[in-house]
Amino acid sequence: MIKLYGMTGSGNCWKPATLMTQLGQPFEWIEINILKGESRTQKFLALNANGRVPLLEVDGERLAESNAMLCYLAEGSALFPADRWKRAKILEWMFFEQYSHEPYVATVRFWVHMMHKQGEWQDKIAEAMKKGYAALGVMEQQLKKTAFLAGDVYSIADIALYAYTHVAHQGRYDLSTYPAINAWMTRVEAQPRFEKMDS
Amino acid sequence: MIKLYGMTGSGNCWKPATLMTQLGQPFEWIEINILKGESRTQKFLALNANGRVPLLEVDGERLAESNAMLCYLAEGSALFPADRWKRAKILEWMFFEQYSHEPYVATVRFWVHMMHKQGEWQDKIAEAMKKGYAALGVMEQQLKKTAFLAGDVYSIADIALYAYTHVAHQGRYDLSTYPAINAWMTRVEAQPRFEKMDS
Repeated sequence: MIKLYGMTGSGNCWKPATLMTQLGQPFEWIEINILKGESRTQKFLALNANGRVPLLEVDGERLAESNAMLCYLAEGSALFPADRWKRAKILEWMFFEQYSHEPYVATVRFWVHMMHKQGEWQDKIAEAMKKGYAALGVMEQQLKKTAFLAGDVYSIADIALYAYTHVAHQGRYDLSTYPAINAWMTRVEAQPRFEKMDS
Repeated sequence: MIKLYGMTGSGNCWKPATLMTQLGQPFEWIEINILKGESRTQKFLALNANGRVPLLEVDGERLAESNAMLCYLAEGSALFPADRWKRAKILEWMFFEQYSHEPYVATVRFWVHMMHKQGEWQDKIAEAMKKGYAALGVMEQQLKKTAFLAGDVYSIADIALYAYTHVAHQGRYDLSTYPAINAWMTRVEAQPRFEKMDS
């Protein structure tokens, strides 16, 4: 049985869980509350030296990094086609997500929605939001041209980017001027066995 | 002919250039000076909406994100084996690089070595370096166990992590207490047709 260590409400943890549900892959969810330091205990650090969730366990071997999990789990499915260029474009969006989107969109949501720092960290949040809106702008441009991020077909790139985009409002991002993103989120939610995040 | 838009001295741009040299893949390098705003011109933004280098052009199609390029270019080579789990572990390190390493190790080097902000941004630099050292610690732990990051064989994960690790000292990181990283850098540099970065 595949095990997934994760925290409810974390977009990064939601990604592999949702993909496995969509693929019909059974797994056991093990709750790790990072707000209580559960990802930094000696026991957990022995599983993942980087002290982060999600963490995937397959046949006793462990894999960190949510987007690496998506690639692993989607192998052989239509969500990660074997075509070399298509795969490269999907990976492009997934690296974009971790470098240009998550550190601003997810982080602001974490500060505001989970840590309630919207007053205290006002300047830091405003600074991060500029970069978050820039990332959302890049997505909007692409989604004006294609139905999904890496082209006309739903892929793991859409799971990766949907994760924190659909809860961006919890970080007080205003998506009302991003019609292509909103239409895309509706298309993503209409995929078979798609489950929104508990939050 | 494959084209690579990049800036000399950028580790992210060095990655695909080095891989292509190692693979014997000819390419044309087009210099883009980001310090002069050349990645934010209308002309360049039409090529990459995210306004970043490197940017790879293959048969008129474009691919952003250095690590997506590594995956694309190494397809079919020993540097990115087809085995599903090995590939997942390589991707794990590449996502780690973009999320936990590059934003602290590369960024501090950029601030100190290229923007000369070591005095003015002292606090911000100290804050970022804590996270940079944490990432280097995760690498050190792995490299005590295996010769290369994703196991016993050199892969694109090593190219991705070597890029900014070997110039970390330019950001005033002290790697003297990371013997496994130093031994690994020597092993990476000994790979066929390996070229260190101009800096």
